[in-house]
Amino acid sequence: MENKKSKGILERLNAGEVVVGDGGYVMQLERRGYVKAGHWTPESAVEHPEAVRQLHREFLRAGADVIQTFTFYCSEDKLDISGNVPNITGAQINEAACDLAREVANEGDALVAGCVSKTPCYATSRSETDVKAIFKKQMDDFLKKDIDFLIVEFVDHVEEAVWAVEVLKTSGKPVGATLCISPHGDMEGVPPGECAVRLVRAGADIVGINCHLDPMTCVRTVKLMKEGLEKAGLKAHLMIQPLGFHTPECNLGGYISLPEYPFAMESRAMTRWDVHKYVREAYNAGIRYIGGCCGFEPYHIRAIAEELAAERGFLPAASEKHGPWGAALEMHTKPWVRARARREYWENLLPASGRPTCPSMAAPADNYGK
Amino acid sequence: MENKKSKGILERLNAGEVVVGDGGYVMQLERRGYVKAGHWTPESAVEHPEAVRQLHREFLRAGADVIQTFTFYCSEDKLDISGNVPNITGAQINEAACDLAREVANEGDALVAGCVSKTPCYATSRSETDVKAIFKKQMDDFLKKDIDFLIVEFVDHVEEAVWAVEVLKTSGKPVGATLCISPHGDMEGVPPGECAVRLVRAGADIVGINCHLDPMTCVRTVKLMKEGLEKAGLKAHLMIQPLGFHTPECNLGGYISLPEYPFAMESRAMTRWDVHKYVREAYNAGIRYIGGCCGFEPYHIRAIAEELAAERGFLPAASEKHGPWGAALEMHTKPWVRARARREYWENLLPASGRPTCPSMAAPADNYGK
Amino acid sequence: MENKKSKGILERLNAGEVVVGDGGYVMQLERRGYVKAGHWTPESAVEHPEAVRQLHREFLRAGADVIQTFTFYCSEDKLDISGNVPNITGAQINEAACDLAREVANEGDALVAGCVSKTPCYATSRSETDVKAIFKKQMDDFLKKDIDFLIVEFVDHVEEAVWAVEVLKTSGKPVGATLCISPHGDMEGVPPGECAVRLVRAGADIVGINCHLDPMTCVRTVKLMKEGLEKAGLKAHLMIQPLGFHTPECNLGGYISLPEYPFAMESRAMTRWDVHKYVREAYNAGIRYIGGCCGFEPYHIRAIAEELAAERGFLPAASEKHGPWGAALEMHTKPWVRARARREYWENLLPASGRPTCPSMAAPADNYGK
Amino acid sequence: MENKKSKGILERLNAGEVVVGDGGYVMQLERRGYVKAGHWTPESAVEHPEAVRQLHREFLRAGADVIQTFTFYCSEDKLDISGNVPNITGAQINEAACDLAREVANEGDALVAGCVSKTPCYATSRSETDVKAIFKKQMDDFLKKDIDFLIVEFVDHVEEAVWAVEVLKTSGKPVGATLCISPHGDMEGVPPGECAVRLVRAGADIVGINCHLDPMTCVRTVKLMKEGLEKAGLKAHLMIQPLGFHTPECNLGGYISLPEYPFAMESRAMTRWDVHKYVREAYNAGIRYIGGCCGFEPYHIRAIAEELAAERGFLPAASEKHGPWGAALEMHTKPWVRARARREYWENLLPASGRPTCPSMAAPADNYGK
Repeated sequence: MENKKSKGILERLNAGEVVVGDGGYVMQLERRGYVKAGHWTPESAVEHPEAVRQLHREFLRAGADVIQTFTFYCSEDKLDISGNVPNITGAQINEAACDLAREVANEGDALVAGCVSKTPCYATSRSETDVKAIFKKQMDDFLKKDIDFLIVEFVDHVEEAVWAVEVLKTSGKPVGATLCISPHGDMEGVPPGECAVRLVRAGADIVGINCHLDPMTCVRTVKLMKEGLEKAGLKAHLMIQPLGFHTPECNLGGYISLPEYPFAMESRAMTRWDVHKYVREAYNAGIRYIGGCCGFEPYHIRAIAEELAAERGFLPAASEKHGPWGAALEMHTKPWVRARARREYWENLLPASGRPTCPSMAAPADNYGK
Repeated sequence: MENKKSKGILERLNAGEVVVGDGGYVMQLERRGYVKAGHWTPESAVEHPEAVRQLHREFLRAGADVIQTFTFYCSEDKLDISGNVPNITGAQINEAACDLAREVANEGDALVAGCVSKTPCYATSRSETDVKAIFKKQMDDFLKKDIDFLIVEFVDHVEEAVWAVEVLKTSGKPVGATLCISPHGDMEGVPPGECAVRLVRAGADIVGINCHLDPMTCVRTVKLMKEGLEKAGLKAHLMIQPLGFHTPECNLGGYISLPEYPFAMESRAMTRWDVHKYVREAYNAGIRYIGGCCGFEPYHIRAIAEELAAERGFLPAASEKHGPWGAALEMHTKPWVRARARREYWENLLPASGRPTCPSMAAPADNYGK
Repeated sequence: MENKKSKGILERLNAGEVVVGDGGYVMQLERRGYVKAGHWTPESAVEHPEAVRQLHREFLRAGADVIQTFTFYCSEDKLDISGNVPNITGAQINEAACDLAREVANEGDALVAGCVSKTPCYATSRSETDVKAIFKKQMDDFLKKDIDFLIVEFVDHVEEAVWAVEVLKTSGKPVGATLCISPHGDMEGVPPGECAVRLVRAGADIVGINCHLDPMTCVRTVKLMKEGLEKAGLKAHLMIQPLGFHTPECNLGGYISLPEYPFAMESRAMTRWDVHKYVREAYNAGIRYIGGCCGFEPYHIRAIAEELAAERGFLPAASEKHGPWGAALEMHTKPWVRARARREYWENLLPASGRPTCPSMAAPADNYGK
Repeated sequence: MENKKSKGILERLNAGEVVVGDGGYVMQLERRGYVKAGHWTPESAVEHPEAVRQLHREFLRAGADVIQTFTFYCSEDKLDISGNVPNITGAQINEAACDLAREVANEGDALVAGCVSKTPCYATSRSETDVKAIFKKQMDDFLKKDIDFLIVEFVDHVEEAVWAVEVLKTSGKPVGATLCISPHGDMEGVPPGECAVRLVRAGADIVGINCHLDPMTCVRTVKLMKEGLEKAGLKAHLMIQPLGFHTPECNLGGYISLPEYPFAMESRAMTRWDVHKYVREAYNAGIRYIGGCCGFEPYHIRAIAEELAAERGFLPAASEKHGPWGAALEMHTKPWVRARARREYWENLLPASGRPTCPSMAAPADNYGK
């Protein structure tokens, strides 16, 4: 399939453009019936390509400038342990995922990013040789296809992320690296600023944070990364793809330490208006690659694109079906609903949960990492 | 396209089978980027059939025995007023929607229901002739295609629903009728029991409630309908397709009277475990056609099918990607997540909202209907 | 001790005056260290008269026009069962309590009401003879002292209250009677309207509600009593002394059915501003004897007197230490606290609980009365 | 009046005894009708000695080993600015307050502490000479009476507290000093550890924290003070008298920065069971002088004494009216209330607020100190 992209990821970021990322695949496809929670493996790229294609397309329509390959946890060691995919190889999934991402990316002007994530091998062996071999194998699958750049994501030990970056840099493609860590640092206590420095020194072109914690916390962590880079005299582009959930009580362990994880997260879901606030905060912090992870549905990505419409100079396709700040409610038959067709209403609303016997905060598991 | 269904809706219900309905289309497709809130019209059946087809398919895989045509608010008068669909006729949408529903229904053993909903004409004119002409036109569109039965839904004046039933019965097809009313009765104060009696006397084979209020409230309303029918010596099948949101503070006006409607409903969304409780309650009340409306995503429909797996004798296709009561978490790496792989955990969890500055209940608009 | 009162209770009410009641004794004296929860008996009138005197005085200063004798649960049968008062007789307590009430009442222009409450004898025997003998004995204690009128309170079977009224009327004193029931009626299901009729026919001059439920609910119940009286062509003065707690989820059983009863009610306590709303609502409903029960501290009574300052024509003594609607904050050093010296601020404030892991509503015991 | 105390404060603490402090005066006396909010001055020691005496007595009965003179904000400059006390001098109040404290202390084996608090003079002038003169004057008032030791409290600049300690040490009496600061340090950013060092070097025998923040936060701050002292090789006794309110969202400004301050704090009030947890935490941190400040009512002090009954070897007088952990509920007529007569019930209860439209956390004013 032909690569129709107009400009590469670094061209865009170097030019000061905002890059809108896509949203979360595994939790959304779990709800749609194609991913198994707990396993979270991406075999549906082979089994049900129409479902993956449709979600890619919704993110594209919502404004995503990057379509990530649906290859989360798609290293051979993870697939083996998970035991969820008996008759499909990792290579088959990786290749099918690259084709799907490219097909949809070409429906617009989006880039395809091949994605690797943390490996069970690192957790059990800490062997640089073994872990790097795993990343190399997945990268080689990607390189058989036409991808634009590579992303390391959802890694909570900076050491493993550095190894991944070192492997992926051998491809000659740009490399982004996002850790799923809190402002307190990685699982070994390496502070965010130092994590960023190590990743950039390993060759990462873009660094940042994804998943595990809510947007405002992730912005704080990326700011700490930025400060670390500045102190070290290094430069890199900044990237953020946080949770689409409110998790104010979480620390190190992120949402996995919440009692609601993974099957009762609904009440924590962000509204589109929460996304607007997050995006402005991230933009003001100097972050230019702004997307989402678990919990970000297509309409959350649309909210990123709408918040940044002035900066980007255009609205996404899906905004044909969305009035800015609720404007389409102006035609509603009920006067009090019409009165909601304005920014102030939604910006200031404090949504109720409708669950009067439930608390507002939970007690997270406090032994994460143990 | 051939109709591959094994048995009709009344054959199934008469045999005592459970019929699983599908979920909500307009709110979910709004989030996916294909429906405009406020308008809520179904033009994407023509504009983006792949998106509608995929959502149909997800409901089918989740266990739906009925695929409803995506024809909500698709009367000519509503499309005109809404002004959202300049170059597409209602007939085009109705016919495209029938084809999509049939295509997906035939991927399984599901039935296709052609659906009509309340008309602006009724609200403004109360003209039986005009309103019936509108329903007749939409029915004629359906009858050009191969549909299995008809549903009147989302009507809050029983008079209008009766007119619709009277029209649809002329088709010779079975007719279901669901009102979007509370236990207090319809907009004119007609109690649910009397509403049911009028609908059955008009010819409805199946009566019940859809949308507007949370599941437990809707079960209460259907029970009142059942009592009304019993007192009148009438018999009909019972049906329920409630909201997938917690709305304990709502009365007559339902979720439209909530400050969060329609763009900040996230925190009220039901979990799959909430659905289990609702389904058992509905089943115990004698309701056999059990589905959902706005807020019911594919995984909520799967929860209906899983709760009723013993009664139906099988699990839906999408349960390949879902361990019952969280069983797939048994392979998680964190011990405290593995400990959640059991029914008691999820049945007793009180999920937090993660929004400590938000209330748990809102003050609904109290002038609904005015 | 001389009785210095200017006008009797019926003179005041017949003249259309507002009568401000006093607040709750047993819960407040429990917190001060003089009453034992569970028992709730008033032996401290003998053991620690200074503590009872001081609380009487605080209610007087706050604006109370009536000082109730501290004789709750002071029937001999209750004292015996409770077992909390080994060396003091009921007569000793009743007489000491009358002296204390009179002493403090005479510090202002307040009346003394001798109070009786429900008896264990009724619950176990339903014997009219035995129950009436108990009320007679307690009344005779009172009549040895100088009291102005009598109150039957905290009775949840109208039958027992009627018997009490019949006894107390033999004193020749005016009699008030308040039930601790919900809008659903008494423990036998007798509706509030009929309860009121029976009480007035038995001779009660003043009828109403006390304790068990929150103020707004109690106002609703008194309104039902009023309607009942009007339908029966009867006239009586109306009286209300509700809980000082928010108990929206309670029904029949009132706050005793809450999981927080009696040692964790703090988070439900009303603010003074909640009292203002309640008092206006009660006044508008035609109630003219307005006080409080458990949870009403002196400052809540002051709020009654302040809300009704215009109607009464004066402020209570304790208002020397209270600016209306927070006016004294005008001299605060912090500008944002000074900004709170106004009615709108306090009327619209939604106070947070500071307990993010606690729910807002509890599940009350649903077997009250069983 | 004779001083009947058995042992001085330092004798007790040096012997390893627990010293139970008393509770909060100004907020409680505001509710009782004797103190004006905003002003918070103690003129009722002269105007209404019976009210102050009674509250002293309740704290004594609850277990307090120290009765603090009711002399909060009783420096001449504060009384002048406040303008609340036209015809009474500071000296009159200080002397009356000493007499009241001594009278009640002698009803048991309690000590009397003469208390000074922060001065407006410091805030406006920062003049060591002027501020010290004010403290000297108040101390001289105390020294005309028989007091056992002195306390500096409610100071948020360590510099002012140091000046106060330097003055009070000239009396030859033991001196305690508590700051109302958070773990972040005093208003100038001096960390708690350094604050403690400065206070001890100035001569304080006991150091710690009072008011402004919730108990658990105050324990954390005292721990930081202890660490600072240990690092500096200094020794001092530790003291804590926190708020009786839940204020988890507060920082520097404490409860004054909350929207509920001061007239809607009810929903944040601690239960007696919250006090048990706090006291154990404080005791385990090595703190031996444990009391409360605003929000601590007599029953909260009793809870301190009951939690430490084993360590102290006795229960307080007011425990005659309190079963440990709710034991007195065993005689309740309702079985579900009897089931609450046990520690596990109250330890694990999450009390509801009964306010479903209120949030659980507020947004504190973020400009405290400006």
